[in-house]
Amino acid sequence: MLLLGLDPGLASTGWGLISADGNRLTHVGNGQIRTDSALSLPTRLMALDMALTNLILEHRPDGVAVEEVFVNTNPQSTLKLGQARGVILLAAARSGMDVGEYAARLVKKAVVGVGNASKEQVHAMVARLLPGVKIAGPDAADALAVAITHAHHLASARRIPSK
Amino acid sequence: MLLLGLDPGLASTGWGLISADGNRLTHVGNGQIRTDSALSLPTRLMALDMALTNLILEHRPDGVAVEEVFVNTNPQSTLKLGQARGVILLAAARSGMDVGEYAARLVKKAVVGVGNASKEQVHAMVARLLPGVKIAGPDAADALAVAITHAHHLASARRIPSK
Repeated sequence: MLLLGLDPGLASTGWGLISADGNRLTHVGNGQIRTDSALSLPTRLMALDMALTNLILEHRPDGVAVEEVFVNTNPQSTLKLGQARGVILLAAARSGMDVGEYAARLVKKAVVGVGNASKEQVHAMVARLLPGVKIAGPDAADALAVAITHAHHLASARRIPSK
Repeated sequence: MLLLGLDPGLASTGWGLISADGNRLTHVGNGQIRTDSALSLPTRLMALDMALTNLILEHRPDGVAVEEVFVNTNPQSTLKLGQARGVILLAAARSGMDVGEYAARLVKKAVVGVGNASKEQVHAMVARLLPGVKIAGPDAADALAVAITHAHHLASARRIPSK
């Protein structure tokens, strides 16, 4: 099962692809989609949509999960993040997959064990869980952590016998 | 020149199409795109994108303008609105048009003459400026007002001689 994790942002959206075979997780790829702040907002959103849609078409993941947005105290930042997130959720939904959503706290708890883990702790634990991975940056590390959380979630859902 | 105005919202996005021939404005169509709150957020965003993309493909407007979002004091509302707005800006940009953006105050000033006009005043003035129009609802009235503002803006921009 190929799983795509996403950490949304207008300036930089992290992505991480892992292969999950039962409890065995393997790194497939990760990166950060950047948009040029000199461009107009609609053009930046289009660049984000194109990069993400290409990524999905190239790798055809079986599942996708997105980090829930931390609602910023700055309303303009929240609006900016919301606009990027809307485009990301749309690209994910258009590919016909259900979209998992996980709060940042839950992702940290799933990967590090505590909900208030630092970015460094998340990075270190992602690197340990996916041996040999080269992580493109902090947003890519978060995106890989979201993918790992989604893998755990799907694995535990499968352990519950359906009637 | 066919101009599309949009008033973004997740539950209801208003749209208004007018034809502008110099200072003569004619109503072409208006409506409200609603999404079902019982559906998941990604599915609602996809429904909004599809309806809007179909509208653009059907009418092929020459220009599009979007109302700037009023940043709500409720961060969750701001986030929701931002997600819908991101999808709307993307659909507009994908059609290859420049996207005009106007603050609500500016739209009210352009249509009614005062920046703090009520919804009823906007509705009444839109009805007067576009004789015979049947307005689908308050969001459609706002969207027609945005289209009218865009027409005024383009007309005054043309009056400035280029060198």
